[in-house]
Amino acid sequence: MSENRTVPDIVIGRLPIYLRALTHMLEEGQRITASRDLADRLGISSAQIRKDLSHFGEFGKQGMGYDIAHLLDQIKRILQVDKIWDMALVGAGDLGHAIAFHGGFEGRGLRVACVFDNDSEKIGGRLGKFEIRDAANLAEQLGKLGIKIAIVAVPAGAAQAVVNDLVKGGVKAILNYAPISVTVPPDVKVQYIDPVVHLQRMTYYL
Amino acid sequence: MSENRTVPDIVIGRLPIYLRALTHMLEEGQRITASRDLADRLGISSAQIRKDLSHFGEFGKQGMGYDIAHLLDQIKRILQVDKIWDMALVGAGDLGHAIAFHGGFEGRGLRVACVFDNDSEKIGGRLGKFEIRDAANLAEQLGKLGIKIAIVAVPAGAAQAVVNDLVKGGVKAILNYAPISVTVPPDVKVQYIDPVVHLQRMTYYL
Repeated sequence: MSENRTVPDIVIGRLPIYLRALTHMLEEGQRITASRDLADRLGISSAQIRKDLSHFGEFGKQGMGYDIAHLLDQIKRILQVDKIWDMALVGAGDLGHAIAFHGGFEGRGLRVACVFDNDSEKIGGRLGKFEIRDAANLAEQLGKLGIKIAIVAVPAGAAQAVVNDLVKGGVKAILNYAPISVTVPPDVKVQYIDPVVHLQRMTYYL
Repeated sequence: MSENRTVPDIVIGRLPIYLRALTHMLEEGQRITASRDLADRLGISSAQIRKDLSHFGEFGKQGMGYDIAHLLDQIKRILQVDKIWDMALVGAGDLGHAIAFHGGFEGRGLRVACVFDNDSEKIGGRLGKFEIRDAANLAEQLGKLGIKIAIVAVPAGAAQAVVNDLVKGGVKAILNYAPISVTVPPDVKVQYIDPVVHLQRMTYYL
């Protein structure tokens, strides 16, 4: 399979959604799928799905459908989640708690490996199986651990400072739950999760 | 200001991000902004920002910048978050807990108004200021309450059934945290929050 590094980011953004749907299909005992099946599940056109997958080579034979297990393996490899990435979680509040206990990372190439907070009452305490580490020397600790991915679950006012430390520590991918846009160098990726942004996108249509 | 109901959904999707950034600017004491200021904060081109806002009429005078308070009011009105929407939260687990206690809804046109679960050990108990209601007759209760927006924080296997009940109860906008794509009638909007989808979109680049 030829891989093309100039694949548009919006296509890359849909691959995890395909991966999730294919995983559910396989769990339900399905072995083969057509782009139309996927389209019905996802509300994405089958033409779009075929076009997206064609960026990475030939996955299915004309009229034969896709072998789900094979397609899953290939997408995992493309997204580099055929291995497990250790992630740092910064912020051990309510949201950090929900993230640390989130069952959805398992089997999807990701795991929380360490938890940081700057609250002296929390540092040294536990969040599930994790000892809460002092965020004071975050960059240094992450550098030593070789961690490349971090989840930010701190208040908006603290987010940019935390992100700066993450970048200093060598982190290249940040999932930011703080409701504020942060700036990073061009070689660092940021994704945002802010429920209000999603909700306000829908209130327009009500 | 003329409003155009054929505005592309992707433009609507950026308005909450502009709203959030403008709110921060105002809180920081700024009164006037240029599209370039916003562009620097958001990593969106200033041409794109001007084009997006032009869908809704003239917000700024050439070379004068935007009056932040005025622009805020207008975007709030467009997104219909100049009032407060009551939301139902379904799922009172770790994630539901974090959502119920989430401070970020305040002042942004949204509030959690009621919480449902199907666990008999939880029903009748409390989640913060909310009494946890029985999800058994979800549709009926939501109909009575006139609720149009719901947040789904249940396991993947339960999500479609919950969504069906929400739709039956008159809900028109659903924020789904369950890691599965759900199907809804064409007049119902769904947005998804799955941290793994965001994270896997970044592992590709590592």
